Amino acid sequence: MTLTQNAPDQHSVQPAADQAVLIVHGRDRTGIVAAISAVLGRHGANIVSLDQYSDNPHGGAFFQRTVFGRAGLRAALPAIEADLRTELSGDFELEWQIRDLSVPKRVAIFASKADHCLLDLLWRHRRGELPINISMVISNHATTADEVRSFGIPFFHVPSQGKDKSAAEAQHLQLLTGNVDFVVLARYMQILSGEFIERVGVPIINIHHSFLPAFIGADPYAKAAQRGVKLVGATAHYVTEDLDEGPIIEQDVVRVNHAHSVVELRRQGADVERAVLSRAVLWHAEDRVIRHGNHTIVFQ
Amino acid sequence: MTLTQNAPDQHSVQPAADQAVLIVHGRDRTGIVAAISAVLGRHGANIVSLDQYSDNPHGGAFFQRTVFGRAGLRAALPAIEADLRTELSGDFELEWQIRDLSVPKRVAIFASKADHCLLDLLWRHRRGELPINISMVISNHATTADEVRSFGIPFFHVPSQGKDKSAAEAQHLQLLTGNVDFVVLARYMQILSGEFIERVGVPIINIHHSFLPAFIGADPYAKAAQRGVKLVGATAHYVTEDLDEGPIIEQDVVRVNHAHSVVELRRQGADVERAVLSRAVLWHAEDRVIRHGNHTIVFQ
Amino acid sequence: MTLTQNAPDQHSVQPAADQAVLIVHGRDRTGIVAAISAVLGRHGANIVSLDQYSDNPHGGAFFQRTVFGRAGLRAALPAIEADLRTELSGDFELEWQIRDLSVPKRVAIFASKADHCLLDLLWRHRRGELPINISMVISNHATTADEVRSFGIPFFHVPSQGKDKSAAEAQHLQLLTGNVDFVVLARYMQILSGEFIERVGVPIINIHHSFLPAFIGADPYAKAAQRGVKLVGATAHYVTEDLDEGPIIEQDVVRVNHAHSVVELRRQGADVERAVLSRAVLWHAEDRVIRHGNHTIVFQ
Amino acid sequence: MTLTQNAPDQHSVQPAADQAVLIVHGRDRTGIVAAISAVLGRHGANIVSLDQYSDNPHGGAFFQRTVFGRAGLRAALPAIEADLRTELSGDFELEWQIRDLSVPKRVAIFASKADHCLLDLLWRHRRGELPINISMVISNHATTADEVRSFGIPFFHVPSQGKDKSAAEAQHLQLLTGNVDFVVLARYMQILSGEFIERVGVPIINIHHSFLPAFIGADPYAKAAQRGVKLVGATAHYVTEDLDEGPIIEQDVVRVNHAHSVVELRRQGADVERAVLSRAVLWHAEDRVIRHGNHTIVFQ
Repeated sequence: MTLTQNAPDQHSVQPAADQAVLIVHGRDRTGIVAAISAVLGRHGANIVSLDQYSDNPHGGAFFQRTVFGRAGLRAALPAIEADLRTELSGDFELEWQIRDLSVPKRVAIFASKADHCLLDLLWRHRRGELPINISMVISNHATTADEVRSFGIPFFHVPSQGKDKSAAEAQHLQLLTGNVDFVVLARYMQILSGEFIERVGVPIINIHHSFLPAFIGADPYAKAAQRGVKLVGATAHYVTEDLDEGPIIEQDVVRVNHAHSVVELRRQGADVERAVLSRAVLWHAEDRVIRHGNHTIVFQ
Repeated sequence: MTLTQNAPDQHSVQPAADQAVLIVHGRDRTGIVAAISAVLGRHGANIVSLDQYSDNPHGGAFFQRTVFGRAGLRAALPAIEADLRTELSGDFELEWQIRDLSVPKRVAIFASKADHCLLDLLWRHRRGELPINISMVISNHATTADEVRSFGIPFFHVPSQGKDKSAAEAQHLQLLTGNVDFVVLARYMQILSGEFIERVGVPIINIHHSFLPAFIGADPYAKAAQRGVKLVGATAHYVTEDLDEGPIIEQDVVRVNHAHSVVELRRQGADVERAVLSRAVLWHAEDRVIRHGNHTIVFQ
Repeated sequence: MTLTQNAPDQHSVQPAADQAVLIVHGRDRTGIVAAISAVLGRHGANIVSLDQYSDNPHGGAFFQRTVFGRAGLRAALPAIEADLRTELSGDFELEWQIRDLSVPKRVAIFASKADHCLLDLLWRHRRGELPINISMVISNHATTADEVRSFGIPFFHVPSQGKDKSAAEAQHLQLLTGNVDFVVLARYMQILSGEFIERVGVPIINIHHSFLPAFIGADPYAKAAQRGVKLVGATAHYVTEDLDEGPIIEQDVVRVNHAHSVVELRRQGADVERAVLSRAVLWHAEDRVIRHGNHTIVFQ
Repeated sequence: MTLTQNAPDQHSVQPAADQAVLIVHGRDRTGIVAAISAVLGRHGANIVSLDQYSDNPHGGAFFQRTVFGRAGLRAALPAIEADLRTELSGDFELEWQIRDLSVPKRVAIFASKADHCLLDLLWRHRRGELPINISMVISNHATTADEVRSFGIPFFHVPSQGKDKSAAEAQHLQLLTGNVDFVVLARYMQILSGEFIERVGVPIINIHHSFLPAFIGADPYAKAAQRGVKLVGATAHYVTEDLDEGPIIEQDVVRVNHAHSVVELRRQGADVERAVLSRAVLWHAEDRVIRHGNHTIVFQ
C-alpha cells in the first residue's frame, strides 16, 4: 500500500494546442522528407515527432506522419498548406492531409445489448484518455440509454429487426451525416450494407471478438471452445463490404485453457475486446493509422 | 463485423447453488486426500474440482482446495463438517474451513480520488463477473459519491487528513465491524495503521501501482520513468504492517518505451492496475488464494 | 551485472525416482477420487500432486492426473496396479494407465532443412530440461546430420521426394517400430499418410507455424503478411489424418507490425515455434496432456 | 501439419549493402530534420527509414536515427560526412555519427559455466539473425570451449578466481583492444572493475537475470521465490560502474506460480534471458539504441 500524499493522478491526454498532424503517403522517391521538413522549417514550425515508413525505398509505397507545432499555428496553417501544395503536388505522386490537433475528431458509437466496449469508451473519454468528441451513441436496444445519457452524451434508439435494414440505415444516415468524422461499432452485432458504408463516407471501426482470420463470422467464442484453442483474442478493423475482412488496426489475445467454458471465454474475451478497441480508437483519433490496400500502417 | 443473431451474450458467473468449497492446509502426510474424499463420498457429495499442492511431499506444507456439491447441500453441511472434524483433527496437523458458495463474500471498497480501480470493480460486479456482495464504498474524498450510489451501493465519506488517522480509522471500524468479509483498497493511497489492520480482523487486499518489489513506496511511475524501465506493472497483495511487503496475489505488466511520459505511464499502468485487482478480488472471492507465510498459493 | 559466486546454476529436471503418474479418465461420478486415493494410501504411496477436471460433475467426462511416490516404488507397482484394476474397473466406466516416472519416454524427432525447432529440442535435452530419451532424428535432408550426431544422437537420412511417400514411410516404420513412445515433427514439412499415422501407433506431435485455425496449410507467414495481422503465432498439436486439424496442445503469439517483411515474420515466428514445441514436448513427456475428442486437457 | 513444398525458409538478415545509419542527438531546435534530409537529398541518398524523438520540442533532447542508401554509397560517404559536418556543427549543439551498414560490428562474448545465453547468440548468429561479427568468446571456465570452436569462433579461457581480478582484466584488455566494437556479458557472473570499463572503451551489454530494479545483485531467482512474485524476468542493460544500475535496453517477463521451485524459476527465466539478450544485441548492432543519461532511446 502506498502513500502518495502530493502526487497528482492525472491521466488526461493534454489538448495539443498549436500542434497539427501531417499525413503523407504515395510513391517513395528521394527528397520527400527533405521537402516537407524544409516547408515546416520555413514557417517556423518545430517537428514534434516524425514517423516514416517505406515498403521499398526504390519506388515503393511511402508513409509519413509528422506532428509539428508553432505559436499561433491555426493562423499559420493556410500558408503552410499552400506551401506544401506547391512542394508536394508538383514533383511527387503523393497524397497528404493536415489536421489541427486542437480539434478532436467527432465520433458516433454504435452499440447493442452488450455494453462492455461502449462503457469502456465512455469511461476512458471522461477520464481524458481519448482525444475525441463523442457526438452520439446509437443502439438497436434501449437498454443502455440511461447509462449513456448520464455521461452527458446523446443516445438514439434505432431498432433494427428483420432482414431489411434499409429503414434503420436511413435513420442512421440522417443522424450521422455532417455530424461525425468516424464511426465505432462497439459490439453492434449487425451487418451494415455496402450502400450504407459508401454513403456514410467516414471510416468505420469494428471490434470483432476473435483473433482474425480465425473464427470469422458469428459466435467465435463457441467456435473457439469447440476447436480447443489455448488463446482467444479480439481484432479491431476498418469495416469494408467483406464481412470481417477489412484492414486490421489492432489485435490481442489472452490465454485460456480446457477448463474455460464458453461463458468464461466470453468474459475473458470481453476484457481483450475493450482493450483492443480503445487502442484502435485512440490511434485512429490521433491519425496514427494509415490505410493502404487491405493493410494498415500504425505509427505508435 | 459479425452477425450473431441469436447468440446470448451472458458473462455472469452463475450462482453456485448447492456447492461448497473446502480449504485444507497443514503438514503433508499420506492419506489426506483419501480421508477428505472418503468423507465427501459418504455424504453423497460429488467433487466438482480439486486442486492440491505440497511444497514437499515428505512433511512439507500441504494445501488443498476442493469444490463439492450435492442436492440439498446447505442442510447436509453440518454433518459433513462434523465428519471432517473427526477425520481431520485427530490424526493430522491440519487447518480447514468450509464455505457455502451460494453465499457471496461481503466486501468494502476503499477509494480515493483516482476512480479507475473502483469503477472497474463496480462495473464488473454489475455485469455479474464478481461473486461478491459490495456492502459499501468508503472514500476520503466525496468526488465519486454520485457515481457509486448510481450503482445502488452505499457510499461513506470519511475524510482523512493530517498525520493522525485515528479518528478516521475509528469511523472505518464502526462501519466495517460485522459487515464485511474482506476489504479492498482500490488505490486508497493512505497508510493503514497496524492497529487498524489487526482490529478490522478481515483480509485487506491492496493494489500497488508497480511490479513489486520494484518501486516500493510513493509515486512508482515517476520512479519507473526515472529508471528507464521497459515494462511497468501492478501488484495486488494482502496488506500487512510492512508497507508494500505483504503476500502477493497477482501481478502483471505492460510494455512501455522511452517516449512514454510519466502521465502516459500512469495511463497505461491504470489498465494493468484494474485488471490485476479484479483478478485478485475474483480469486479471493472464490477462495482460490491461500496465504502461507509471506506467500500465496493461488489455485486458478 | 551480477556476482553470484557460489550460486549453482542447475536447470535439470531431477529424475523422478520412486514416483509414478496415474492418468484416469472416463465418466464422472461420485467417489472416483476417494477410490483412487484410498488405493494409493493402502500401499503407503504419498500423493505428490493431483489435478482433476470434470466437464460436468453430473456424468460428464472426468480426468485425473495423480503423481504419487513411495520408497521402492518399482517393486510395489504391480500390486498397486492390481488393486486399482479391482477398484476402478468394476464400478466405473474409466480408462487408466500408470507410468513409472523414472523411465523417460523415447522419442524420434523428424526434421527437414529448417533446424531451429530440432536444435532447440536437442539443446534443451542436453541441458536436462526435457525428461525424454531421444532415440533418433530422421530427416529428409542430410544437412543437419553432423550437428545431430555431435549431440550423441543417431541421425537417419530418409529422402522423401515426389508424391509417393510409401517407400519413405516404410523406412520410417522400420526405424520406429518398437523403438519410440512418441514422434515429434520439428518443422518436418511433409504430409504423413493416414496409413502411416495408424501403423506407427504412437502419438505424433507437430508444430504448425501459425496460430491455428488461422492460416491452415502452406506458407502461413506469407498469408499473415498478406492479411496484415498484428500478431503471428505457432501451434503444437497432435497429428491426425485431417491436416492441421488435430487436438491443440499449446499455442503462443508474438506482436508484429506493418514494417515486418515475410522474412522477418519467419524469424520472429521461429522463436515462438520452438518455445511452443518445447512446452508441448515437455508436457507430453510428463503425461500432462490428455486427449479427449479433438481437445486436450493440459494439467500444467 | 503443413506441406510447404517450395517455400524457402530463410531467416537471414540481408547484408545491407549500400546503406548507412546516421545517429544524431543533441539539443532540439527548428530545422534539424530539414538540414539532415537536405544534405542526404543533395547526395542522391534515399531515406530508407527515419525515427525521431524529442523529449521536449522546445529545447529538449533530440534524437534521430536515419538509415539511408544510394548506389556506390561507400565512395560517397566521405563527401556526405563533410557536408553534414558543415550543416550540423555550425548552428546546432548536436553530436552525430555515421556507420556503413555493410560492415558488421565486432563483438566479444564473455561467458561462464551457464551456456544458454552464449549458445543462443552463437546459434542465432549462424542462422544469420544477428548482423554481427563474433570476434571471440572469453570465459572463466573451459567447459564451453569445444562447443564455441565448433561454430568456428576463437575461444579464450581466462580464469578469474579470487578477489583480485587485475591479472584477468589485463588479459581481457590485451585480447579486446582494437579487436571489438562492443562486449556482451552472456551470464558472465563476474563484476568488472571501473578501471576495466573505462579502459576497454567500448559499450558493454549485460543480461541480468531479474526484472530490474527488482532483485538487484546475486541470486535473483532465489530472492524472487522468497518474495513470492508471480512473474520473473530479465533485463539487458549497459554496464556502468554501479552494479545493475546501467541504462536498460530491454526487459521481459514470464508468468510463474507458487508451484515453481527456484530450479524451475531458473529454467523459465533462462528462456527470457536469452530472448531479451538477443534482442538487445540485435538492436545495439543495428544502432537502434541511443544512450542518454541513464536511459536509452530504442528505435525499434
